[in-house]
Parts: sequence; C-alpha cells; structure tokens
Amino acid sequence: MRPIAFPAVNLVVQKFGGTSVADPERIRAVADHVARTVRRGTQVVVVISAMGKETDELLRIARDVSATRPGREMDMLVTAGERKATALLCMAIADLGIEAESFTGSQAGFLTDSTHMNAKIIEVRPDRIRAALAAGRVPVVGGAQGVSPERNVTFLGRGGSDTTAVAIAHALGAESCELYTDVSGVFTSDPRVVPNARKMERISFDELLEMTANGCPKPAMRSVEFARNYGVDLHVRSAFTWEVGTLVTKEDEDMEQAIISAVVHDADEAKVTLVGVADRPGIAARYCRALADADINVDMIVQNTSAAGITDISFTVPHDELERAMHICESSAAELGASAVTGEPAIARVSVVGAGMKSHPGVAATVFETLAENDINIEMISTSAIRVSCVVAEPDVERAVLALHDAFALADGPSYVD
Amino acid sequence: MRPIAFPAVNLVVQKFGGTSVADPERIRAVADHVARTVRRGTQVVVVISAMGKETDELLRIARDVSATRPGREMDMLVTAGERKATALLCMAIADLGIEAESFTGSQAGFLTDSTHMNAKIIEVRPDRIRAALAAGRVPVVGGAQGVSPERNVTFLGRGGSDTTAVAIAHALGAESCELYTDVSGVFTSDPRVVPNARKMERISFDELLEMTANGCPKPAMRSVEFARNYGVDLHVRSAFTWEVGTLVTKEDEDMEQAIISAVVHDADEAKVTLVGVADRPGIAARYCRALADADINVDMIVQNTSAAGITDISFTVPHDELERAMHICESSAAELGASAVTGEPAIARVSVVGAGMKSHPGVAATVFETLAENDINIEMISTSAIRVSCVVAEPDVERAVLALHDAFALADGPSYVD
Amino acid sequence: MRPIAFPAVNLVVQKFGGTSVADPERIRAVADHVARTVRRGTQVVVVISAMGKETDELLRIARDVSATRPGREMDMLVTAGERKATALLCMAIADLGIEAESFTGSQAGFLTDSTHMNAKIIEVRPDRIRAALAAGRVPVVGGAQGVSPERNVTFLGRGGSDTTAVAIAHALGAESCELYTDVSGVFTSDPRVVPNARKMERISFDELLEMTANGCPKPAMRSVEFARNYGVDLHVRSAFTWEVGTLVTKEDEDMEQAIISAVVHDADEAKVTLVGVADRPGIAARYCRALADADINVDMIVQNTSAAGITDISFTVPHDELERAMHICESSAAELGASAVTGEPAIARVSVVGAGMKSHPGVAATVFETLAENDINIEMISTSAIRVSCVVAEPDVERAVLALHDAFALADGPSYVD
Amino acid sequence: MRPIAFPAVNLVVQKFGGTSVADPERIRAVADHVARTVRRGTQVVVVISAMGKETDELLRIARDVSATRPGREMDMLVTAGERKATALLCMAIADLGIEAESFTGSQAGFLTDSTHMNAKIIEVRPDRIRAALAAGRVPVVGGAQGVSPERNVTFLGRGGSDTTAVAIAHALGAESCELYTDVSGVFTSDPRVVPNARKMERISFDELLEMTANGCPKPAMRSVEFARNYGVDLHVRSAFTWEVGTLVTKEDEDMEQAIISAVVHDADEAKVTLVGVADRPGIAARYCRALADADINVDMIVQNTSAAGITDISFTVPHDELERAMHICESSAAELGASAVTGEPAIARVSVVGAGMKSHPGVAATVFETLAENDINIEMISTSAIRVSCVVAEPDVERAVLALHDAFALADGPSYVD
Repeated sequence: MRPIAFPAVNLVVQKFGGTSVADPERIRAVADHVARTVRRGTQVVVVISAMGKETDELLRIARDVSATRPGREMDMLVTAGERKATALLCMAIADLGIEAESFTGSQAGFLTDSTHMNAKIIEVRPDRIRAALAAGRVPVVGGAQGVSPERNVTFLGRGGSDTTAVAIAHALGAESCELYTDVSGVFTSDPRVVPNARKMERISFDELLEMTANGCPKPAMRSVEFARNYGVDLHVRSAFTWEVGTLVTKEDEDMEQAIISAVVHDADEAKVTLVGVADRPGIAARYCRALADADINVDMIVQNTSAAGITDISFTVPHDELERAMHICESSAAELGASAVTGEPAIARVSVVGAGMKSHPGVAATVFETLAENDINIEMISTSAIRVSCVVAEPDVERAVLALHDAFALADGPSYVD
Repeated sequence: MRPIAFPAVNLVVQKFGGTSVADPERIRAVADHVARTVRRGTQVVVVISAMGKETDELLRIARDVSATRPGREMDMLVTAGERKATALLCMAIADLGIEAESFTGSQAGFLTDSTHMNAKIIEVRPDRIRAALAAGRVPVVGGAQGVSPERNVTFLGRGGSDTTAVAIAHALGAESCELYTDVSGVFTSDPRVVPNARKMERISFDELLEMTANGCPKPAMRSVEFARNYGVDLHVRSAFTWEVGTLVTKEDEDMEQAIISAVVHDADEAKVTLVGVADRPGIAARYCRALADADINVDMIVQNTSAAGITDISFTVPHDELERAMHICESSAAELGASAVTGEPAIARVSVVGAGMKSHPGVAATVFETLAENDINIEMISTSAIRVSCVVAEPDVERAVLALHDAFALADGPSYVD
Repeated sequence: MRPIAFPAVNLVVQKFGGTSVADPERIRAVADHVARTVRRGTQVVVVISAMGKETDELLRIARDVSATRPGREMDMLVTAGERKATALLCMAIADLGIEAESFTGSQAGFLTDSTHMNAKIIEVRPDRIRAALAAGRVPVVGGAQGVSPERNVTFLGRGGSDTTAVAIAHALGAESCELYTDVSGVFTSDPRVVPNARKMERISFDELLEMTANGCPKPAMRSVEFARNYGVDLHVRSAFTWEVGTLVTKEDEDMEQAIISAVVHDADEAKVTLVGVADRPGIAARYCRALADADINVDMIVQNTSAAGITDISFTVPHDELERAMHICESSAAELGASAVTGEPAIARVSVVGAGMKSHPGVAATVFETLAENDINIEMISTSAIRVSCVVAEPDVERAVLALHDAFALADGPSYVD
Repeated sequence: MRPIAFPAVNLVVQKFGGTSVADPERIRAVADHVARTVRRGTQVVVVISAMGKETDELLRIARDVSATRPGREMDMLVTAGERKATALLCMAIADLGIEAESFTGSQAGFLTDSTHMNAKIIEVRPDRIRAALAAGRVPVVGGAQGVSPERNVTFLGRGGSDTTAVAIAHALGAESCELYTDVSGVFTSDPRVVPNARKMERISFDELLEMTANGCPKPAMRSVEFARNYGVDLHVRSAFTWEVGTLVTKEDEDMEQAIISAVVHDADEAKVTLVGVADRPGIAARYCRALADADINVDMIVQNTSAAGITDISFTVPHDELERAMHICESSAAELGASAVTGEPAIARVSVVGAGMKSHPGVAATVFETLAENDINIEMISTSAIRVSCVVAEPDVERAVLALHDAFALADGPSYVD
C-alpha cells in the first residue's frame, strides 16, 4: 500500500470543527499544524468553529432565557462562539512566530440573505482575506457567519462552518479544502458494527453523497453537495492523529473504479404500508403532500404495478415520526381508498455504494444472494446507479452489514472492475 | 426614617455587573426589572457586563493558549462576553413584550484610542442609541468596549462597564445612572467587621472617593471619579434584593452634612521607615522615584520636621511589596544618608470619613481619644479636609473600626452638625 | 433604630447556598466569615450547597445522557456537587490558619430512607461532627445528602441543604442556624413592586410560613416548617453584604406584636368557578379528589352557603394548570350538577400578614377599604388568624400591594398594638 | 492486509479517557460500544476518567481557592470528577437495556497507601466487582482512586485511570485491557512530521516503552510498564472512530520481528558539555548527584574514553532546565577539573526502535548513512538492544525523521528479518 503523494500546493483551506479546538491544548495543537503547513511553503486560510460544544451551549442558554428568541439577537449571540475561537487561534499561531489575523464572517466578506439562524450565502468578497495572505499573514475566519444587507450579523446554521470553508476555497481558488474532525476519514462501513472496516483513501462526491444520504453520519451531506457543485476537492481527516484521511473528489473517468466502496446502514427508520390502494393518478401526490405538510420526511417509497387496479404502497419515515405518519394516513385512508394502514417500527436499511457498479451488473444479485444465505429477509428494495438499498428487519441489520462487507471483501481493499 | 422619594425621571441608565446576569434566571430577573422601569414611564438604556466570571474565564483561556497574546486579538476575544450578554438580555426583554436591541460598543458610538486591553474613550456618538429610544426600544449596550480609529474592536479594561454607563448617561443627559451589583449599597463600615454597620441613604462623591481610596472595595474608584467629573448622579444598589441603595451625588451646600459618614479600613499594608535621613530638599523625590520606577505604589507618607537636620521618613506600601520596597530603600540608604531602613509588615489603616468635619473641628480629637481609650497605639496619622486616617498595628485594626463606629454612633443614623 | 444585640453564642450552624459559593472568590469570602466567627469564640458547623448552579447543571447533563436515570446513579451524580464544595471550602479555611474537615452526608451521620432524589431524614448521628468540634476543627458538611439503609448515597432533593442545616442544628443543640443567601433578609414586601419596602429585623415562624405560602419566594417553606417544628431559630441573611438580616423565631407572648408585618402577593394564579352546583355533601370532595389525582395543586377555595340548594364554588390553581383543571371539571360537571365551568386566567392574590391582627379586629376592614379607595375589585377573600388574602384582577395586583404597604405604613417600621 | 482476528473473549476491561466521555453525546456513544460488546457475549468492566478536562478544572479551582490545599481535601475534591462520570455512564447504559452499577475506587476494592494526590495501589479486592459481573451487571469503576488505611479517599494522580484499568484487569484475570483514547493507535512516526506514517497493528511492550521514553506521547509510559509487569495485553484504540487500533503484547519468540517498528523524536532537549574533565572515578557520580539534587532530569549521557586522562562529558536535559543545569555545572567545574562548560539549546533526538534489530546488525549503520546522505550531523549517539538514538541539531530533526522513516520504508508496512 503506497501512500498517496501529497504534492506541495499553493493555497489550502483548513477547516477545524469544534472538537478539534475544544480546549487550550487542542488550540495549540491546531496552531502547530497550521504553522507546519505554512513552513512547508503553502498558504493557509483557516476556518474555525466555536470551541467544543459552545454553540450547543449558547443555544441552550438562549432557550433557558427566552421563549421568543428574536433572530437578530440569536445570530448576535451564536456568532460570539466563533469570534472567541478565531481570536484564540490567532494568539496561538502568533506564539509560533507566524502572524495571524482573525476575521468575522462580515470582515471576511460573506454577504448573506437576512434569514436569521439559517442564512444563505449570496456572495463572497474576500478582499481582506487576500490582503492578509499578500501580507504573509494567516487569515483565521469565523465559520458559519456573514452579514445581511441590513448590516446585521447572520448565522449560516449548524454545520455551516463546512460551507464557509468550501465557499472561501472556491472564492480564492484554493487547491484543496481540508475538513479536520475527530474521525480519521471515511470508512468502508461503521467500525462499531464491522470491526475490520477500512478507512478509504479516496471516494467520489457521488458515492459519498449516497453514503451520507443512507446513514453515514460524517461529513455533513450539505458540505459534500456544496463541494461537488463548486468542484472543490475535500480531504476528510483527523485533527487528533493528523494521519492522512480520505480524499473526496470528482469521479475520474480515466481511473478504474472500485466496484463497491462501502456498506452503510440506517437503523432509525420505520415502515408504513397503505394496503389496497386504488391504482390511479394522484394517489402518491396526495399522501406525500399530507405528510410533507406535517413536516414528516418520507424517504424510500415503493409501489408495485398492480394486477387489478389495486396496489400496496410502502414508504419509510424516521422512527419517531411513525405514530404521527400512521395517524395522517389513517385520516386519509378512506379518501385514498386504502383498505388498511399498517406500520412496522422495527426496520432498518442497508445499502452498498460503489461507482463501479455502473459497469458491473452483478452487484444487486450478489447483495440479494448474500442476504438470502444469511436468512435475512428483504422487505423493500431501492436502487440508484451507484447504490443498492434493502430494507430488512431491524434486528438483522448489523448481521447484514457484516455479511455484505465480507462478501465484497471490503476489508482487503478496493476490488476493481476488470 | 422616611424613605427618600424617587421622582419619575425621563431617562435612566441601568448598569448590571456580571454577578447580576450570571445565569438565565438572573438575566430574566434583570429583564423583569428593566420592563418594570419602562412600564413606569421611564426610558431606559441598559449597560451590561459579561455573564458571571466570563471575562476572567476568557483571560484565563487566553493565558493557557498563548504567551504573546496580541492586543488586537485579546480585545476581539474579551468583548465576546458582553456581546453574548447583550443578546441574551434583549431576548429576555422581548419575552416581556418590550422591544430591545443589542449594541456593541462600536455600534453604540464609543470611539476610543488604540490602547488594546485598556482603551480610553475619546468620544461618544450615541446616534443609534437615540434612534432606538425614539423608536420605543430599549438599547442594551455591551460594557467596556469601543472601536479604535483603525476600526478594530477595543476593550476598556476590567471595571470598564461602569465607565461605559457613566459616559453614556452623560452623553444622553440621563437623570441618573444606576449601578446594580450584588451589594445593597454603601455601608457605614464593613459589615464583616462591624455587624451593625448601616447602609447609607446618600453620600457625596468626595466622601465616597475618600472611602474607596482608603479600603472600601465597591464601587470602583475610577467610576466614582468619572461620575464626579461629569456630574452624573449614581445610585449604587442591589440586583438581588432590588431594595433602594445608596445615592452618590455632589455635596449639597444647602443641606446639612453628617459629621461622620463612615469608618473604613485597609489591612493590606506594610510600613517602611527611613531612619536618620538628612533633612534637605530632594530626598523625598529620590526614594519616591526609585520606588515608582519599580512600580511600587507608595501610599501614606509621613515626614516630621527635624530638630537637627535629621529626620525619619515613614510610608506605607502594599503588603506584598514590602520586601522589594525594603530592598530598594536599602540600596539607596547611603545616598540618602539614612542610618537604617526598618520595615513593619503587620500594620493597617483605619479612616473616618465625613464631609461635615470641615465645619466641626473636634473629629480628629475624638478619633485619637477613642483609640487611646481602647489601648490602640497610633503609628502614623494623615488627614484631608474630610478624612482622618491612623495607621495602627494590624491585630488592632478591627477593634479600632468597631470602637470608632460606636464612638460616632453610626449605627443609629447620621448625626448632623448643629 | 437600635440594632439588635447579638450575644456571643457557643455553637452556630452556618448554611451557605449555591450563589454564596459560586466561585473561588466567593468561597474565600465565606471562609473569611467562618474564620471570623471562630475567632470571636463561637464554634461553627458549616453546611454548604453545590457551587452556583452546579446541581441544575448535573441534572441537565443527566437528562441529556439518559431517559431512564436510575435513582441510585442520580444520587451518586448529584451529591458530587456538594462534595466538591465542601473540600474547596475546607482548603480555603485552612489557608486562614483554622483546621477544617469535610464530611459527606453519610460521614456526618445523616441516615435516610431509600427514596432516591427525595430522601427523608430518619435519624442524625453526628458523632464525627462532635469529634471534629472537640478537636477544634470546623466541620464542613455537604448539604442535602445522606445514606440509605442499603449503604447507598441518597439525595434529599432541591433545597435540601436548608433541611440539613436545621437538622444538624437541632441534633447538636446549636443556638442558631444562619441561612446565608443572596438577599439581605425578609422584606415587608417585594422591593421590585414596592421600592421602599423595608427589611424586617424579626418575624415569627407562623408569619413567615403564611408569607411563603402566599408568594414570598425565600426562604423555602419546607425549611421554615422544619425549623418551627424543631424550635431552631433562623437568621436569614446575606453572604454578599454580611449585614444583619432577619431573625425568624417563635412568637414571643410577652412581646408586643406588630399589627401587620408584610404585604405579599402571588401573580401566578388562575381561578376556576363551578357555577350552579348542587349544595349537598361530598361535592367538594369529589372535584378536589379528581384534581388531586391529576396532580393539580388547588389553593384558595371559596364556597358560599347557597340560597336555594344551589351554590357557586371557586378555587385557584397555578396559572399553567388552568387548562387541565378546566378540562377535569368539565368532565365531571354533569356528575356534580354544575350548570357551567368558567375559568379566569388573569387573577392574582394579595395578602397582608401580621401576628398582631389576632388582637386587632380592624385589619380586614382596612384592607377592603384601601382596595376600594383604589378602585380595585375583590373577587375572592380568604383569611386565617394572622392573614387576610384577596384575589384581584392580575393587572391590579401591584397597585394593590403598593396601596396596602402604604396604608399600613410599613416603610416606616412596624406599628404595634396599643 | 488481512485484519487481525479478534476472537471472542470472556472478560475485557475497557478504559475510557476524559476526551472519550467529554459530553453527553460522547457518553452515549461509549455506552453504545459497551452494550455492543456485552451483546457479543463478552463480560465488560469499564474504567472511566473524569469528563473532558474536568480534573484540570478542579485542580485550577483548588489553586484559585487555596494556597495550602491539604491532601485529604484535594483527594476528596478531585475524585468527584470520576464519580460524576461513572454515574452518568451507568445511566446511559441503562437506557440501552443493560444494567450497570457505578463504583468508587473504594467500593471497587482499591486499597492504597496514604500519599494524597499520588497514592500507590497496595492491593485490589474486587469482590463487589465480581458480584456485579455475576449478577449480569456492568461494573463502571471510577479511575485513579482508592481508599487509604485511614478510610480516606485517595487519588492515584494524573493518568492514574490507565493504572486502575490494568490493575483491575490483572486482578480479575481479564483477557485484554482496551485503552480508548482520541488517537487511533500507535504510529510508525508522528503523523504531523511524517504525513504517511502508518498505524501499527501490533507492537511489543519493550518497543513501546522505548518509544514512549524517546518522545512518543501516548499511551503514558507508566501504564505500559505496569501492563508489561503484570502481563496484561493492551489494545490502544480510538473511541471516536472505533476502528481496530494497536495491540501491545509481550514479544513473541516464535514470531518474526519487524526489524524496525518506528521512528520517534524528541525536540524538547538541550545539551550540556563539560570540557576537559579529569578522567577518574566518581566524576560522573558527582555532577549527576548535583543535578539530581536540583531535580533536573538528566537523560542521554555520553562520555568518551580519553586519550590523556582528559575527557569531555555531554548529556541532555529538558530544554527549559538548561540554564539551571549550566549554573550547577559551572559551580562545580573547578571541583571536577573541567576547563569549560558549554550549553547548546537547539538540539533534538531522533530514535529508531525495533525488536528485530537484535538479530540484524546493520541497523545502526543504515541510520548513520541515511543521516549523512541528508547532510545531517550527528552530535551524540546512544543505543540499547532495540533502539538507536542520535542527537542532531534541532532544525534538522524533522528532516531526519522523514529520511529514516523513508529509509526503512515504514509506510509500506513492517519489513521482517529474513
């Protein structure tokens, strides 16, 4: 296993999450890493979250203090966390003989709309960041914040620091955006379930998006989408071990693709079935609208072509929404012509993801055979070009993950299309 | 005892210290008080410190993170505390149906010099504060902060929130500046030493300045000086009991003055004596300069006219500076012609303060007699127009305070010049 | 106004609440006060709560961690707060040259039942406390904790430190139990509403119980009851100003009684009326039982003798229970024969309390006249031997309090029965 | 690369450090892992540290509160942190349907001596732990604590939780002791310096001890020594990624040994040279004694056999002790007959470690050649059976580490003695 070579780059964005800067010792460790990168001849722009759980803490205090919580004041409050962290990291970098300069979102040129607590970036004008770089200083930017047209402070929402990092990388034309976190990369499966799960060297945006949409918790789906849209390569890596992590890039046409990259699962689901529904246009629209109006996120939907104008429709919802979803469907059962509504709380979804399956038709068959050999019944199936998902009984899901990880020999390293 | 009437005023500045807003419950209590004041028809501008010990905590983290601590970043860091507190208090006030708007020092118009961590106010331009008041909103201003000519955030230093409050009260022409704290007012003596010490209804700036200069810990001397210079009446009171506190005003010529208002003491002193010094010009200047150069604060100085061109000079220094002060004096003893340098660590100062003593000559005699009757030896004496101070042995000082408080019957209420 | 003399006592229990020991500075201030008391020749047993809001914080973390929260582990968790505080206070006292020794509830001899999170004291065997006192050490006891017959740690519940203090004072035969808090005593009315409310020098257990039962928030009613039952004199006072507070004692027959001691109010109430109820036995029992079963605390109940076998029954409930209470009453309206159930959310209660009114019949009349003169309508009336309470419309209550406080001239000091 | 198989074991000790249980989310993640292990049929005993930086925080508060800090009270204080963590983890495990029971060090049977803040374990009597296991419960033991013969709580010192874990594993005959931390294992070199450093699957106690003694920061040397002495296999792994970490075991005679396992370095050193010392017995003893008396830790010592009865002696000391060490050596230079004492602050040590080098003589030569090829001058050399260390100029050390890591191809995996 030859490690991937990391060529010297001119400009990199390094984003550090809250755990990475949770205390003075960690802030100094991050400063040390930033200084090393600078000394190797790379310009660095740092994006930083609030220390540890500070954002959670600020939100909690706000809830304890107030029931109304006006948006303008919430954003004033919450952005104080990143403000502290940027100043502290600049001090720590200064101790190592390198000049650093803290920037709020506003100072860094993040213009947003006026949606408090969930603002969207309209434009990035990083003039002061460019000036700091030109002057040989390390800009340290507070993540997840900007300024509205009314000159009020705005907050991009939880996980918004990743967005800040990708956006500034795009605006500055940085070669790479490194997302430092407390995990060492993206794994072929959840190591809690599959003890010999393997950290991947590289994965495509599309694969990672399928993974995050199907149970892989980190990095946040939103930042992966953003990076794909802007074509900013990500490097997901650890601020604790500092070892090389996982590169997330565009799928390379010339490169051979691993058939299967990962097996992911999501146990937090429940299934609802509308039995004996009339098979006519508009039925799906109706119950989906009703559930959407109730803010229930419907995920996998399966509907068979019916034999005699009658069909069953099944879909999954988050586990703790089952009761409400059942209630809504029962209310409209008559209207939909459904003979019954059944709910199954204890289901889970297992998915295999791999860009190589596009040119390798046998994957689905292998998935189904593997589950069958392990006496695991499949309740629902859904596929995309690079994913096969099966809904199984919840108690079976971890066995399913183990079996599939083994069947595709993922612990041994990627197997390629021949 | 008729309570002082508090006439309705048009505009008041209410300043809340860290203890007063230490947690969500306290912030809501403060919001309730602000709302009550507004409902009684008074416009309120709030100045607020960081929650509880947050400023100390931020300084501590900075020390843990960095040895260099550049000033620009320190001010960025430290002012985050007030930022949080202003936003939270605005939310709590909003819950009570009154609009409030948070302002950083910069937004409130505090222009300062560029001395980071200890900036001085150059000018206050409270346009946005006036606009908020005109719109019927309560402005909540972050204390102890401003903006430098270079548009960097600046910090006025510890205790700077009092200064912010007095300055904004002056700039807006407020009738009164209320300093809310965790004590219920100014007492005739330290209640820890004198159990029946009495809270005063009213005291003059000059008396309170003498008290704070001679051992009374609250309010900070700096804010009293500031208020006197700008003629802003203070009301020192409690944010825990909300009872009426102590008014601090200009001395009123028409009003009769209490002979003695308070007995204060300071036990944290030591005495140095230069024995047998030549009594010629420039001697005092020389050792004072040497001590000042070493950053040692010399307090009470006593020098007798000498009989034969030889004199003894005594002065007090803070207790933990005694060793260094002795060392410096010994170094220059030869030059000063001193035959010996002696140090006495265990001394303390007791002072009686009262504007009425100006027209009532017997006070000093009563002080000396009282101490004599209690077998307390006086080591040094120093007086001003409204103060008599005696240095006594440290173990005697609390007895001295009790005796003097009793001798002037301060627990019974003020006694007036007839 | 002569201050009450505080004769030297042999043994005192000093209890400090969380705010009093919220940070290192406060812990040192408390240690200083304990040391002063010891140096004046009084033996001291200290009872101490967890620092600041630590108990709240521990409960919050527990909720964040677990839905089940087994009682044994909760008590292990929560008592850690007092453990820390006792050790820290002992260190601070040691710095002042006085030996101190920390004791958990178990070590201090507090035997309780096994009701986790709300244990009851069965017996106090303070052998180790007595031994520490005999050895000249200051025992510092963790409040609100004990040990169960199964040798598990138990927690007495919120506010349990007051109970610990009173119980140990009783067990040791202490002369007094001082409850240090962040307020300076018990006031004639809420100073937030009545700016010239006066701190009382002394009040009887019975009066204070009536006050706490009718809206006075501190001290906790439970500790007052406990102290009355055990005949332990309380001294409610401030750990911030250290001034003399309010003595709470048995009513002294020989002493003249103030006619009225205080005006208290409770705005957090709502009124429910059952209209046209059949006036026959068992009716009150039935709805009271139904409400009790739903854990709704019914407070003031008023039922008139009916003219024609039909009556209206009104009672008050906590404001946020109104909806549930209405629902329950409506469910049983038919059974009770009520023609209607009406609810009034915006009511409040004002009460005047005074032991002297027992021998002074005109008090109720003065109350009613005062309210009438101020155009305040009385909706319900309830009296005890030493209290007159009126329910009024919520927007009127603070005016009512001000008017009554003024009518009885409480700001001027107690007025006595002639 | 086949992953190492982890056979089912009967009993495992899982120790979680502070970072692993820093907040509620992390505590629930740890509980999930414990529950999974139990469900796989393995009995688990958990040892846990205080949450996050709580122990540091408690020590800081103690310093803020007190200058004397009596040991008994310090141990009472500090052990409160683990107490909280054990209770919280038990609650989180209970939520997953598995019974858990918290134990203080005393309850777990850790008998220690009476050295407060640094107690030594005398005996472990884990009767209650065995009873809990027999009853199907998961014992959760507070790390780093015990009870003295006087029945006072004792604290084993910083890092003592590892010791607790190894000791209880030994006492119960556990198959393995898993040390969960925030890094994913032991690396072939510091990934901050060598980006392609590789996590090792397995390493021997002796190799790891040489590594920790020569700059590798984790795990603590003390716990490795303890584990080696008691023959308790360690598994150093991550509580964040949960991936398989590094096994630390006895060197296996039958197994082939990697020639070189790791390259470690220590940049925090300075060099002192005594020039022209008389080459006679007792010289080394004399300056070593003088330095030891001053509590200066002398590390690498090199002394050449002299040509003419005169020699140079060099040794390294921690960087911030250089000045004091120089001072001491200069004081005794005359006595030692040294002609000069020189100090060099900017040196560092690089070491290659590998059990296979015992049977593979060329390692040292390769080390020297590699450094020579990279123009890195060697100032001192020291070797053990399984280590070669070179002192080089500090600015060269990271290049030296990179070159040696590359020369032995450590990124490719272990190379074995043929």
